[in-house]
Amino acid sequence: MNFIRNILKNSRSQEDGNFFLILKDILGYKPKHETLYIKAFTHRSMNIKDKKGNPINYERLEFVGDAMISSVIAAYLYEQVPHGDEGYLTKMRSKVVSREHLNDLGKDLKLIDLVKSRIPKSNFGNNIHGNLFEALVGAIYLDKGYKVCEKFLFDRVINPHVDIETLEGKVISYKSLLIEWCQKEKNTFSYNVYEDTGKDELKHFSVKLSINDKVVAKARATSKKKAEEKASKRAFFALQNQINKLI
Amino acid sequence: MNFIRNILKNSRSQEDGNFFLILKDILGYKPKHETLYIKAFTHRSMNIKDKKGNPINYERLEFVGDAMISSVIAAYLYEQVPHGDEGYLTKMRSKVVSREHLNDLGKDLKLIDLVKSRIPKSNFGNNIHGNLFEALVGAIYLDKGYKVCEKFLFDRVINPHVDIETLEGKVISYKSLLIEWCQKEKNTFSYNVYEDTGKDELKHFSVKLSINDKVVAKARATSKKKAEEKASKRAFFALQNQINKLI
Repeated sequence: MNFIRNILKNSRSQEDGNFFLILKDILGYKPKHETLYIKAFTHRSMNIKDKKGNPINYERLEFVGDAMISSVIAAYLYEQVPHGDEGYLTKMRSKVVSREHLNDLGKDLKLIDLVKSRIPKSNFGNNIHGNLFEALVGAIYLDKGYKVCEKFLFDRVINPHVDIETLEGKVISYKSLLIEWCQKEKNTFSYNVYEDTGKDELKHFSVKLSINDKVVAKARATSKKKAEEKASKRAFFALQNQINKLI
Repeated sequence: MNFIRNILKNSRSQEDGNFFLILKDILGYKPKHETLYIKAFTHRSMNIKDKKGNPINYERLEFVGDAMISSVIAAYLYEQVPHGDEGYLTKMRSKVVSREHLNDLGKDLKLIDLVKSRIPKSNFGNNIHGNLFEALVGAIYLDKGYKVCEKFLFDRVINPHVDIETLEGKVISYKSLLIEWCQKEKNTFSYNVYEDTGKDELKHFSVKLSINDKVVAKARATSKKKAEEKASKRAFFALQNQINKLI
């Protein structure tokens, strides 16, 4: 084990000194088995092998993470959707764990910034974001067990992003829901949209949503409409939390 | 919740008095939330509904159980097969959780004896055995959490039935392995095979494997060869456990 720890640690140079600082911020705890997380952010192009010649990279961890995400979401949907039969629950889960959604989660956490790779990051396809997210979840499970992994998924996926009403197609637009609420509560609101293509090839837009002149949510997407909807949804859930805390 | 408990309990007549006794034997613990297990053995033909009109039967629990089995096996294979990449691990898992294997597990535990149904049990297809197994695993998870569910799967699936060497195609026959071992250790052995079709439409065979005139394993399958192989495998692992205990 020391052998693997050393080769993995050596693969991270001085400039990655803040790797564990950033990671702790994402995880909300200090990792116990650091090598698992280093592995979760090691791309196959690094060509690192263990003593027996087995490659060390994040791909095997994706397998574990994918299974854990499926389990946590399955148990959550079972409780939340009592009228859904097996087929319906399966369909709902596939919406939550869609490739697109997993990629968004990885992007939101900026996981790609942590990857160690020999090929330029601009050469990666879009799926690397979701793959890294799955690998990170796998590392969390193996490091800290199911409960911590479940908590991470509730904090990072279910509470901020999963909404049964939307999944069931009952909420058409969070923007209209939010505007309605603002008008009812006599709050002012504004969407500040600007082009923010960054390093992406596709045109992207960022939006800052303010309520009573205070930024309450930010989002980024490939269209103005999508970015506004995303920010509205985030604001909606942030506000819901606040309301719950006040009760 | 009391409402559901009452209708579920009433759906079980006096003659099911030993339902929880048998269940405790299978689980190795006393259930906390009994309704979950009653649900896990309620067939849709019973046509039971909760207050809101949602059907109560084992089908939704299958969804949870299936996910938990996948997770536990994924984590196990990750540790046990360090040379396997994501695709290889996925393939190995699908061998472990094949429909046929899940059906075998359900049959071994005689779960069908516990089902409450309005249609005759002889009318069920073969898959009901695996479905009940999945539903039971779902109930275990929801009742006692991941750790207990994992232990159940290790005790009932992984330790007695999963063998990495076989999955990897390295062991061709447990029968030849066992015979080799008996000859080396100067033990006598015999396979006592008899036809045992029972209620099945297909012809079945049962086998009792004795070593030094003591029955060490039993098995049942659709051919003599399969039954012998199954019994040999069970004996092999039972003996391995004994050897491990002696060390």
